[in-house]
Amino acid sequence: MNKPGFLGRRLQGLQRRWQAIAGAEYDEKTAGLRPHLPPEDRPHVGELMRQSLDPRGGEILARSRAAALGRVYLTLNETGRSEFLRMLAQDFDLEAAAVKKALADLNAAKTSGARRKARQALVQATDPPRTTILTRFNALPQGVKFLVDLRADLLPLVKGDAVLASLDDDLKGLLASWFDVDFLQLRRISWNTASGALLEKFMAYEAVHPVESWEDLKNRLDHDRRYFAFFHPRMPDEPLIFLEVALVRGMAGNIQELLDPSAPVGDPRKADTAIFYSISNAQKGLAGISFGGFLIKRVVDELAQEFPGLRTFATLSPLPGFRKWLEGGLRKDEGLFRPAEIKQTRKWVAEEETNQWFGGVLRDALWREDKGIERAVKTALLRLAARYLTAESRSGGGALDPVAHFHLSNGATVERLNWEADVSEKGMKQSAGIMVNYLYNSRRIEENHEAYKGRGKVTTSPSLKNLLKG
Amino acid sequence: MNKPGFLGRRLQGLQRRWQAIAGAEYDEKTAGLRPHLPPEDRPHVGELMRQSLDPRGGEILARSRAAALGRVYLTLNETGRSEFLRMLAQDFDLEAAAVKKALADLNAAKTSGARRKARQALVQATDPPRTTILTRFNALPQGVKFLVDLRADLLPLVKGDAVLASLDDDLKGLLASWFDVDFLQLRRISWNTASGALLEKFMAYEAVHPVESWEDLKNRLDHDRRYFAFFHPRMPDEPLIFLEVALVRGMAGNIQELLDPSAPVGDPRKADTAIFYSISNAQKGLAGISFGGFLIKRVVDELAQEFPGLRTFATLSPLPGFRKWLEGGLRKDEGLFRPAEIKQTRKWVAEEETNQWFGGVLRDALWREDKGIERAVKTALLRLAARYLTAESRSGGGALDPVAHFHLSNGATVERLNWEADVSEKGMKQSAGIMVNYLYNSRRIEENHEAYKGRGKVTTSPSLKNLLKG
Amino acid sequence: MNKPGFLGRRLQGLQRRWQAIAGAEYDEKTAGLRPHLPPEDRPHVGELMRQSLDPRGGEILARSRAAALGRVYLTLNETGRSEFLRMLAQDFDLEAAAVKKALADLNAAKTSGARRKARQALVQATDPPRTTILTRFNALPQGVKFLVDLRADLLPLVKGDAVLASLDDDLKGLLASWFDVDFLQLRRISWNTASGALLEKFMAYEAVHPVESWEDLKNRLDHDRRYFAFFHPRMPDEPLIFLEVALVRGMAGNIQELLDPSAPVGDPRKADTAIFYSISNAQKGLAGISFGGFLIKRVVDELAQEFPGLRTFATLSPLPGFRKWLEGGLRKDEGLFRPAEIKQTRKWVAEEETNQWFGGVLRDALWREDKGIERAVKTALLRLAARYLTAESRSGGGALDPVAHFHLSNGATVERLNWEADVSEKGMKQSAGIMVNYLYNSRRIEENHEAYKGRGKVTTSPSLKNLLKG
Amino acid sequence: MNKPGFLGRRLQGLQRRWQAIAGAEYDEKTAGLRPHLPPEDRPHVGELMRQSLDPRGGEILARSRAAALGRVYLTLNETGRSEFLRMLAQDFDLEAAAVKKALADLNAAKTSGARRKARQALVQATDPPRTTILTRFNALPQGVKFLVDLRADLLPLVKGDAVLASLDDDLKGLLASWFDVDFLQLRRISWNTASGALLEKFMAYEAVHPVESWEDLKNRLDHDRRYFAFFHPRMPDEPLIFLEVALVRGMAGNIQELLDPSAPVGDPRKADTAIFYSISNAQKGLAGISFGGFLIKRVVDELAQEFPGLRTFATLSPLPGFRKWLEGGLRKDEGLFRPAEIKQTRKWVAEEETNQWFGGVLRDALWREDKGIERAVKTALLRLAARYLTAESRSGGGALDPVAHFHLSNGATVERLNWEADVSEKGMKQSAGIMVNYLYNSRRIEENHEAYKGRGKVTTSPSLKNLLKG
Repeated sequence: MNKPGFLGRRLQGLQRRWQAIAGAEYDEKTAGLRPHLPPEDRPHVGELMRQSLDPRGGEILARSRAAALGRVYLTLNETGRSEFLRMLAQDFDLEAAAVKKALADLNAAKTSGARRKARQALVQATDPPRTTILTRFNALPQGVKFLVDLRADLLPLVKGDAVLASLDDDLKGLLASWFDVDFLQLRRISWNTASGALLEKFMAYEAVHPVESWEDLKNRLDHDRRYFAFFHPRMPDEPLIFLEVALVRGMAGNIQELLDPSAPVGDPRKADTAIFYSISNAQKGLAGISFGGFLIKRVVDELAQEFPGLRTFATLSPLPGFRKWLEGGLRKDEGLFRPAEIKQTRKWVAEEETNQWFGGVLRDALWREDKGIERAVKTALLRLAARYLTAESRSGGGALDPVAHFHLSNGATVERLNWEADVSEKGMKQSAGIMVNYLYNSRRIEENHEAYKGRGKVTTSPSLKNLLKG
Repeated sequence: MNKPGFLGRRLQGLQRRWQAIAGAEYDEKTAGLRPHLPPEDRPHVGELMRQSLDPRGGEILARSRAAALGRVYLTLNETGRSEFLRMLAQDFDLEAAAVKKALADLNAAKTSGARRKARQALVQATDPPRTTILTRFNALPQGVKFLVDLRADLLPLVKGDAVLASLDDDLKGLLASWFDVDFLQLRRISWNTASGALLEKFMAYEAVHPVESWEDLKNRLDHDRRYFAFFHPRMPDEPLIFLEVALVRGMAGNIQELLDPSAPVGDPRKADTAIFYSISNAQKGLAGISFGGFLIKRVVDELAQEFPGLRTFATLSPLPGFRKWLEGGLRKDEGLFRPAEIKQTRKWVAEEETNQWFGGVLRDALWREDKGIERAVKTALLRLAARYLTAESRSGGGALDPVAHFHLSNGATVERLNWEADVSEKGMKQSAGIMVNYLYNSRRIEENHEAYKGRGKVTTSPSLKNLLKG
Repeated sequence: MNKPGFLGRRLQGLQRRWQAIAGAEYDEKTAGLRPHLPPEDRPHVGELMRQSLDPRGGEILARSRAAALGRVYLTLNETGRSEFLRMLAQDFDLEAAAVKKALADLNAAKTSGARRKARQALVQATDPPRTTILTRFNALPQGVKFLVDLRADLLPLVKGDAVLASLDDDLKGLLASWFDVDFLQLRRISWNTASGALLEKFMAYEAVHPVESWEDLKNRLDHDRRYFAFFHPRMPDEPLIFLEVALVRGMAGNIQELLDPSAPVGDPRKADTAIFYSISNAQKGLAGISFGGFLIKRVVDELAQEFPGLRTFATLSPLPGFRKWLEGGLRKDEGLFRPAEIKQTRKWVAEEETNQWFGGVLRDALWREDKGIERAVKTALLRLAARYLTAESRSGGGALDPVAHFHLSNGATVERLNWEADVSEKGMKQSAGIMVNYLYNSRRIEENHEAYKGRGKVTTSPSLKNLLKG
Repeated sequence: MNKPGFLGRRLQGLQRRWQAIAGAEYDEKTAGLRPHLPPEDRPHVGELMRQSLDPRGGEILARSRAAALGRVYLTLNETGRSEFLRMLAQDFDLEAAAVKKALADLNAAKTSGARRKARQALVQATDPPRTTILTRFNALPQGVKFLVDLRADLLPLVKGDAVLASLDDDLKGLLASWFDVDFLQLRRISWNTASGALLEKFMAYEAVHPVESWEDLKNRLDHDRRYFAFFHPRMPDEPLIFLEVALVRGMAGNIQELLDPSAPVGDPRKADTAIFYSISNAQKGLAGISFGGFLIKRVVDELAQEFPGLRTFATLSPLPGFRKWLEGGLRKDEGLFRPAEIKQTRKWVAEEETNQWFGGVLRDALWREDKGIERAVKTALLRLAARYLTAESRSGGGALDPVAHFHLSNGATVERLNWEADVSEKGMKQSAGIMVNYLYNSRRIEENHEAYKGRGKVTTSPSLKNLLKG
């Protein structure tokens, strides 16, 4: 027997359980469907979809049929899944005519009883049949994970395809209800309690500072570190989002120092600052359903309780779009630099070629080898980074930088920029080695949030203001 | 300090946690509201409701405000709660005008993108603001239980009040989604693992055969008994519904024997029959959201796996409406009896007074003291019980007896009637001491269900057919 | 099948597991032995004992044979068990000759190597074969509980029987090693977590203030109460000893008030005093292996950590031998009373009949009905109680009162006597309604212990000293 | 602060807990002792040892002092620990004079009561004070692990030092009692449940086939593998011994194939054979206290229950001393080869130089590159391996090979030799690439064990017999 991949093994599991749930008969009905779901096979699948809705035999059996349908989905390849989703999207949407009739009944209703009935009919008319089918996939073992993964399949197909996008509207709505943030469980992850399988997932899902080895992961779970994740009760082995924290003295300004496994372990009871240095979403299928802000707040609460000595809660974050933005400006020859800054570069380049020279400096990170160049460009780069974070905005409003947008939406302040803070390849390439501390001050969060959401105002510390002034 | 009741203690718990969540400031805002919520206090509560919807400060803070609002609700008395619910019902419903506009936009949409957008707006227009408020109560510790209890408060007010009934439509919809049956956890309850607090709840919630003492409960959890319950992950200490099973040899036909604590304990591995002798809903606030059929199916699966020797799965159930129905017929002087049956009673009564005489026999259960009377009436009573179960129907269709309706909807068969099967006061009063076995035959369930749902056909065993023929 | 009693059901369990351990063959060998173990059956049992020692087939099989032997023991009645224990005691003791030889070898040893060898032989020669057999009973499922129960069988037979007493010396030594106090687990017992089966045991084992109902037990586990027990890892469902605590304001002086289920529940965070009002051993077979002092110290630690506001740790204890001692003195016409006390009783009795009158007052607790009598006798009774606790000693030294001896050995102080503190039947009969607070002051424990152990000095509070002076 | 090593961190933990147990005062008493325990510091330590015995203040305080003493031990370096152990060995042994007196009393005792008393005094006289001190170290958090580690320190010092060896006799006796095999918990280790910290220990402790990476370990925990370990209840995070099993079809004969992470995963339900391919002790301090046989038996039971299809339980084991033995014989020019075997090598070497040539072939594993040489030497090498396993014995009796001795003592059969079965560097160097299957046939175990223990008879399969005959 060949060693089956992850999916294969899950299928075996599903198959076993499925047979227990619904008997072998549904297996027979779905046998023979081909992975790419060619046109000849589609009527059969459509029939299975209808049967998943059908109240015949009661809801228990309808759920069994939905589980069988879900099992079919798992056997499909990319092409087949795309077809499957399209069928679900096209053939099981709400019907505008039914909505219209319900609305007319509501308007015509004479008695409060009739009004109630018509109103409820209206609500139901806008609940499309495909949502019922999606809901019933919950009958699969790991049914919630199935839906999350199905959405992960769906999302790449949505762009430019309004029919599938509309299916995603419904699926996202269903998941947003089931993943209501107050259903989520906060768990502290530790080397002494987390299983090998779970630790492996954290390694795979880390999105900010890749985990290089088991040693690296172990170091992130050490005595002076904290690691928290949200879980859903029906997906106990799958983290949804996780946050890594270092407990230190003073505001940390360098990620390599934080992640250095040979660095001395601090005494967390003496720490005055909690640094959130990485936050990663683990489930692609939950994109757009936001837990990050809640996770940070919950973790702040937990830490404040465990370590009463903590005074400061802040991040150490990348500026992932900084260099891209900066190089765009340089290419377009925008007037990015101030005269004083240009003057400092005279030693190496003529004024009119400042932008071009800067491009070369950035590309090769020349300041890292030449103290003179560093003196000449550091101020300008930090100022530009500050401007990038605070003054540049995306088309729909809000900060251009996605990380900035996330923390500012949560009510954080742009507190401090750190030079030579992330000299990893990724850090240099995206952020020119600069990192930023966003400060979470619980007494200012509401006000900051309002200022940002309402007026697009980015709250900054005096040091940032000084940087911006130059 | 006075010993607070259950609610009072919960309030203390809520208060503590709440302060952790949202700070003391909300406390101040809600202080001073009076339990009966007089008119002067209502604008304040309305304002809190609006703030629970308000995105100001972000969703985290909106949820904190909703939790504060929930805390207010818990301080209200019956009058105050009724007012609170009415405000929620009247002031935060969907707006028909918005639905109308969205529908018009949908019909007018020219591009698929516009259609998608309009359709999604339509869906959102039918999602009333009060549902958002209700959802955010989840931010309370025990938030799900809060909503279930809130619905338990609401349900008695709904009758004849279409506005509150409509609020209940929304709340029921929300709970139906959150209590999707595949989220529920099946737990076996045992004397060795269940806590005192949990056992106490089972005693309180038992609805069919009241638990008379801790000894009685212990007996129901003995070696040859099984006790299963469904739980929701967010209400781990609160059973939703539970099922009591006796593992016996042959079909059990007498409830007192089953519940006799002095009866010998059987060897469950030698049992061939599982008798479901009690099923009780534990949460009034989940009325109308049906788990019973799923629970029975899951338990059948569990038992079949643990005890491969089980051949028969059946209930031992009361006929709760039998005597009421029968006495109605006697009073109306309907021709309930067959000539042969009437003839047998001649010894005691003239033919024209048979009905009246029967009423007296029923009232005083005379057959229990006189073998002659028993011989004369037993056949007639069993036949009438069979007719009551199988031929009498409620106005909306379906069996007149609610227990029969439940099991027939699940696809069970009316298998056997048992004479002198429940001689408790309740058993005599409701069912004239008769009990019925409903048989769950997994190969017939779908067919039975269809026959019952589609054509109102009640499936019966040959013995029942014989009874009906007389 | 008859409902087997507790032992019978345990036997079934043992039998099943045993067959898994050692195969059915040993069953055959032990079948047919009669419960009273008549002389004809004893050689067979002796052979089984020898086989449990026998290294033939390796230790695994020897342990299987020992388990079979243990199973035989469980089938015996009282007579049979007594015989069994006697065989174990007589035929498997150490051999003095072997000890003598080993000692001679040790004295004759010329090299350090030879000395080591001879010394080890000496140690082994004093380790009797019966200890090996007892140890191997651990192969039974619940093997540790088996040994504890076996000792509970043995203890009543030991008095006046030096052979069995010597067997008990060995068994007690083995249990003392296995029940080393640092192996024990302290668990807080609560209504929300303890199982029905466990709670039932606490009700059965309570030795000081009998639990009257489940309500009573629940009350002892309430918010302002704590309930702790020691467990052994191999007996997770069997408490060894347990301690009941009330968290109150001020020193409690009345047990009925403490146990009143209708009393208001206090806020434990506001308590300044922890009252240990009951401590009970749960395993007869562990008599003489003392855990009580450790339990109190561990609980003091736990409570001090959970409730930093606690200032005082004290008991509320009976004087179980007070009335017996007092009545003995009255009967012997000892001069128990002081002139001033005698004078106060003149109203009712002549001086020479004071003792006799006092006997009647005690017998009928006359002071409870007549305030005048109460005034006349209260001072005398409290003074005599103080004398009983502090000045009367048992033959081997130490306080006459067993409870006093226990707490004084732990380093406690006799702090306060309480009048009308336990008016239950038992309280009146044993202690004339008086109770005493022993104070645990962590800074004085070592000193008190030394004074008591070394010089028999009982440490008392000033109030006690005043009482004693009269 | 420097990052402390494992020991350092444990010390921190100990210190915190210690202060809770015994107050800061003992800290002061032990402060200032130097790690190498120079002569000036020893009287102080001796005093602490005496205080750990001292009943002054009660046993609780004596245990606190013992814990303080244990903490001192942890601060010592190798020299200091050696001194510490010597003091314990020399100054706290039993006293022969006391034994002599007790023995005399026993012989002189006239009554059974006096005999009992004297006998008990004799038993106590052979229980040396140092055992009490060792026992009281259990008061340390992780006290049992402390003792196990202390013995790991002691064992290397024991050789040739009868005083320390005698201390070890006592310590081993204490540990043998506390680690009674029926106290141990069998746990299945899996990737989904075992923590990172625990998995790391398995990697470190693996003694047979080193774990090369986390991937390698994960592979050993895969679907068709089982991994079991024994734990002690007081050392829940420390495995004592563990066993690795592969579930396969047919007898496995090649370890590289078993450990190949890229090999297909088998279906364990289809396996007919359980191969025990690695068993490792994890605690040096438990040397000589044997759990291996019990572990194998328990695992056989577990597997037989989970997989009824298993027919064969066997090992795949190295011959760790084979090449050493063989090369010894070659060097001494013993007549290892048979004429037919010598004849086959003629092509490469003259008869008189066969041994020498064989030495070269072995050293360079020439058969792996030359099929001709393989044909010439394979039969001889397998026959010699069979002889090595079955006919060569150690001085005290029993098989020369330690692995063979272990499995034969457990009652296993030498079933099959496998050529080119372990071509790792270690496998070639120790076993010339050969591995052996020991068969565990439950019906033969007792008989085999007896034959081996009693008469040194090694049970072999027919195929081994054929090999030996050549």
